[in-house]
Amino acid sequence: MMFLLILFTSAFLFPSSNALDFCVGDLGAPQDPAGYSCKKAEAVTVKDFVFSGLSVAGNTSNVMKAAVTPAFSTQFPGINGLGVSLARLDLAVGGRTAMHTHPEGTEVLTIIQGTLCAGFISSTNKVYLTSLHEGDVMAFPQGLMHFQINVGKSPALAFASFSSTSPVIYFMDYAWFANDLPTQILQKTTFLDPDQIQRLKELLGGTN
Amino acid sequence: MMFLLILFTSAFLFPSSNALDFCVGDLGAPQDPAGYSCKKAEAVTVKDFVFSGLSVAGNTSNVMKAAVTPAFSTQFPGINGLGVSLARLDLAVGGRTAMHTHPEGTEVLTIIQGTLCAGFISSTNKVYLTSLHEGDVMAFPQGLMHFQINVGKSPALAFASFSSTSPVIYFMDYAWFANDLPTQILQKTTFLDPDQIQRLKELLGGTN
Amino acid sequence: MMFLLILFTSAFLFPSSNALDFCVGDLGAPQDPAGYSCKKAEAVTVKDFVFSGLSVAGNTSNVMKAAVTPAFSTQFPGINGLGVSLARLDLAVGGRTAMHTHPEGTEVLTIIQGTLCAGFISSTNKVYLTSLHEGDVMAFPQGLMHFQINVGKSPALAFASFSSTSPVIYFMDYAWFANDLPTQILQKTTFLDPDQIQRLKELLGGTN
Amino acid sequence: MMFLLILFTSAFLFPSSNALDFCVGDLGAPQDPAGYSCKKAEAVTVKDFVFSGLSVAGNTSNVMKAAVTPAFSTQFPGINGLGVSLARLDLAVGGRTAMHTHPEGTEVLTIIQGTLCAGFISSTNKVYLTSLHEGDVMAFPQGLMHFQINVGKSPALAFASFSSTSPVIYFMDYAWFANDLPTQILQKTTFLDPDQIQRLKELLGGTN
Amino acid sequence: MMFLLILFTSAFLFPSSNALDFCVGDLGAPQDPAGYSCKKAEAVTVKDFVFSGLSVAGNTSNVMKAAVTPAFSTQFPGINGLGVSLARLDLAVGGRTAMHTHPEGTEVLTIIQGTLCAGFISSTNKVYLTSLHEGDVMAFPQGLMHFQINVGKSPALAFASFSSTSPVIYFMDYAWFANDLPTQILQKTTFLDPDQIQRLKELLGGTN
Amino acid sequence: MMFLLILFTSAFLFPSSNALDFCVGDLGAPQDPAGYSCKKAEAVTVKDFVFSGLSVAGNTSNVMKAAVTPAFSTQFPGINGLGVSLARLDLAVGGRTAMHTHPEGTEVLTIIQGTLCAGFISSTNKVYLTSLHEGDVMAFPQGLMHFQINVGKSPALAFASFSSTSPVIYFMDYAWFANDLPTQILQKTTFLDPDQIQRLKELLGGTN
Repeated sequence: MMFLLILFTSAFLFPSSNALDFCVGDLGAPQDPAGYSCKKAEAVTVKDFVFSGLSVAGNTSNVMKAAVTPAFSTQFPGINGLGVSLARLDLAVGGRTAMHTHPEGTEVLTIIQGTLCAGFISSTNKVYLTSLHEGDVMAFPQGLMHFQINVGKSPALAFASFSSTSPVIYFMDYAWFANDLPTQILQKTTFLDPDQIQRLKELLGGTN
Repeated sequence: MMFLLILFTSAFLFPSSNALDFCVGDLGAPQDPAGYSCKKAEAVTVKDFVFSGLSVAGNTSNVMKAAVTPAFSTQFPGINGLGVSLARLDLAVGGRTAMHTHPEGTEVLTIIQGTLCAGFISSTNKVYLTSLHEGDVMAFPQGLMHFQINVGKSPALAFASFSSTSPVIYFMDYAWFANDLPTQILQKTTFLDPDQIQRLKELLGGTN
Repeated sequence: MMFLLILFTSAFLFPSSNALDFCVGDLGAPQDPAGYSCKKAEAVTVKDFVFSGLSVAGNTSNVMKAAVTPAFSTQFPGINGLGVSLARLDLAVGGRTAMHTHPEGTEVLTIIQGTLCAGFISSTNKVYLTSLHEGDVMAFPQGLMHFQINVGKSPALAFASFSSTSPVIYFMDYAWFANDLPTQILQKTTFLDPDQIQRLKELLGGTN
Repeated sequence: MMFLLILFTSAFLFPSSNALDFCVGDLGAPQDPAGYSCKKAEAVTVKDFVFSGLSVAGNTSNVMKAAVTPAFSTQFPGINGLGVSLARLDLAVGGRTAMHTHPEGTEVLTIIQGTLCAGFISSTNKVYLTSLHEGDVMAFPQGLMHFQINVGKSPALAFASFSSTSPVIYFMDYAWFANDLPTQILQKTTFLDPDQIQRLKELLGGTN
Repeated sequence: MMFLLILFTSAFLFPSSNALDFCVGDLGAPQDPAGYSCKKAEAVTVKDFVFSGLSVAGNTSNVMKAAVTPAFSTQFPGINGLGVSLARLDLAVGGRTAMHTHPEGTEVLTIIQGTLCAGFISSTNKVYLTSLHEGDVMAFPQGLMHFQINVGKSPALAFASFSSTSPVIYFMDYAWFANDLPTQILQKTTFLDPDQIQRLKELLGGTN
Repeated sequence: MMFLLILFTSAFLFPSSNALDFCVGDLGAPQDPAGYSCKKAEAVTVKDFVFSGLSVAGNTSNVMKAAVTPAFSTQFPGINGLGVSLARLDLAVGGRTAMHTHPEGTEVLTIIQGTLCAGFISSTNKVYLTSLHEGDVMAFPQGLMHFQINVGKSPALAFASFSSTSPVIYFMDYAWFANDLPTQILQKTTFLDPDQIQRLKELLGGTN
């Protein structure tokens, strides 16, 4: 028996041998295209694989009456390198997620509470629009613009699953208007009127 | 304007050009290692991206007092090729998922209702054991044995997210005992006693 | 000698053995998430690996004064499964590509002729803006919105290289306005004013 | 001539430019999900690509009368990032590898000496069982439980090839019994009897 | 119990559901970049996972006094989609494998019998040369030219493991001289003298 | 509004959070199989995504009358991890690229100026030969030997796009003759005559 233990141990007690099973992200170390470096095996505990940040509703006192709380590898290092992550979506009555994409992953949304109107748009400009109820799941393919609107009479709760540990949350409005991108360039590249651009820059905190 | 439309359309109206954005699985066609063939673009509707099969509790009148309802590409063809899938987990009081793995993907479990005792075991035989409450999420790395037990006083509900569209559900007990694998081979390869093997073959419907 | 030839031939003359080296797409067959099925080896010729469609300027008589001519796997089946594709970009004086993304790939643009103002926006809403001259190359990371404007006094020509055989060309304006997505939903999810939405639907051929 | 050399060299003499061809693992550095960091090109020699650890039979004086000697990236850093690894399998007369999986890779076993009874079990609980002789090769798909038994009259020798540089060796018995996982939890999740669990914990060095 | 069986079965008895665990290649169907289509689950047997073609020595009565017998997905469909394959290498006394590459995979060679001189050359033109004895393994990184020479007094036997199910065997000499590539083009692109080219075309069966 | 900003910021201001969108290579840090570590987000500017090194013709005063100027991740760190790269090809009158491969990627060549004779050779020794004119593009599948010859009366210019950020440029002649690989080994593994080998070693700077 002892021999066997010795035999296998010899192969399995290298500093980071647990990275064979998983690679808990060392958030202090630099990332590379594959993710974070692995935390030393000795330092890994079950706590690295549990995240409680999604148990609390996000703050919906904002222009979208919505909150997205991510559990990506930067918040939940236990999933580093494992190809899946989550986010919690809270929508107040009348709340909505504005048009956005996830450049790095596909989303599958599970409705826990409430009634939503949701949709996405393909690159052939076809709209895929539907309403979703408790227990329904809907897929939003990688990189396609989509949105969800709480069309019910009570707050809505949903959980999003992603095909990546950092799918990225990318809002078109924020990217266009919440920075110093010159109005003249926006006008040329979005066909929007200058005054409209100005109004949205003010709403979302942009300049120029 | 027309010119522009013609220009782009010419590139985008090939039979399966929508496969550029997504590839809804044609369940009637053979799979290959990448998944199912894509349904013709003209035939794709928003219904392909919505699945309601997880809205109903699974039947827990079984030896595990548990039910796992999958939303993999075979049940939910809209996710074909998109690298993520889901499953619903219902655990009656005292219910549990027996030791199992997902050979093709990592699981992240979100607790919607109830209190669970959950754990997984690494290849260095280290146990990662904890209890989970509403809103907690826990990661179970690809291929590692894990289990969940409802240790609360009411039924438990959770949703599992996977890093694959067909992660596979693989129960050790069923694989060992729910078939005709000879008792003598099982004895040699599991170190279990023959009478124990016999009892479990009876319990799970195996022979030999 | 003969023996050797026989030996190797036996391994290499299976119907689709050339798919070992490459997999010219059979455009008539259905795609799957990995691409098109491979054309039979016997039918493959050097013509499958050459594409002349980028030698002619695209028609820029349109609202963007721009033309994008793709050489993706659907136009150029020789690259099927090989992970790279091209497109030709023609910009008349004052022409621009409106805000768009490539959901499935990164673009690297090579300027052959003219002077462009180009930029992309990150998910932290930071603008990366610059001007480009003959011989410059610029990278536009996967899924991020970007644009190019001909700010010179003559037509501009550039070639785009992509990290995918079907990177997809996805214009925000067309996705929002060139279809029947209800104005009310657009208003809620883009914060644009109804009259602005109406004007753009008219410009780009949308309804509702 | 010189010009040419200068020209190409300029592209190829960066600190780790050899990582273009290969990436010999620096075992002292942390891993990340893609493997180890690359050893500096200047420090790489042919010795990094040769491993002699499989030339000696492993010690089979153990409960399985078996020895598995790995040549994974942690033992053989020259294969880091290259997607293939090996292991040597020695089975004394009557020896066997207990039920195990390789969570991270597929195994193909080549029989060099002896006669084996080998099998694996699918997730539909179907048994794939056969006997193997000198020169036979058998595939054991990723993550599926399998075993090999020396049913011959002399020691057996085989080499396993894996589709990963760290496929992981994962024994069900060791994971269940060679640690402190409480008997009560094991009973609930394996359906085994407490006394059976106790016997195996004693055999394999577990507690609780 | 029955309920449970019904529950899981419902998810697992789709035509090709076994493709979840593996995807035995249907050699009659067309390949695509991911490999062959999967054989119907009902038709899969353990025979699909066993290959005996490597048990016999290849015929070394040829110019290289060598034989390479592949067990790639085209010969061994059970590995289709699983990312690993094998080949048997026989070298008569004085035999050698001429300079060749594997464009699609890395090779790790295990010496079973004999003494070899083996080497590969990096893209910085550095030679990695060594001698190999029984039990030694050597890695040949993807796409780099390498060779093996039997420098012993008896026939040599080795097994090659590859990181791909179709790594491709690509001999420089055969590619240059065993076809109708014009001598003048070869002269310009290899710097070889015309008479040398002629001699090798004659040796290897080329024309022009 | 502020709440919303705070909410998202909290997820996006981690040291290397921009690696979510892209991962500009830190050339000073070690590479791993996935590429370079990411430069700190704060330090990234638009300059990292622009490369001007291809605007100048390479020096063709060499034996091939050719120059290849790479824009791989080592020269152009903005593409690190993004799966695409470029190179500029200059061919003087009568210039040619000698037989070479790209072990890590497929090339698609775009002819900007001049007339070329180009070809590649498959592993079944079939030659794919053609002539290319301005605006033509040709694919050279990963790992296959290919060449380009300027058959026109003026210098030729082309840009190569690759499916990898470090496709590697690998010349057969340089690998065989521009080092100390013993003539006797070359003779055995290339079937070339010793005097021919000697001549090429002298031409390309080799010894032994």
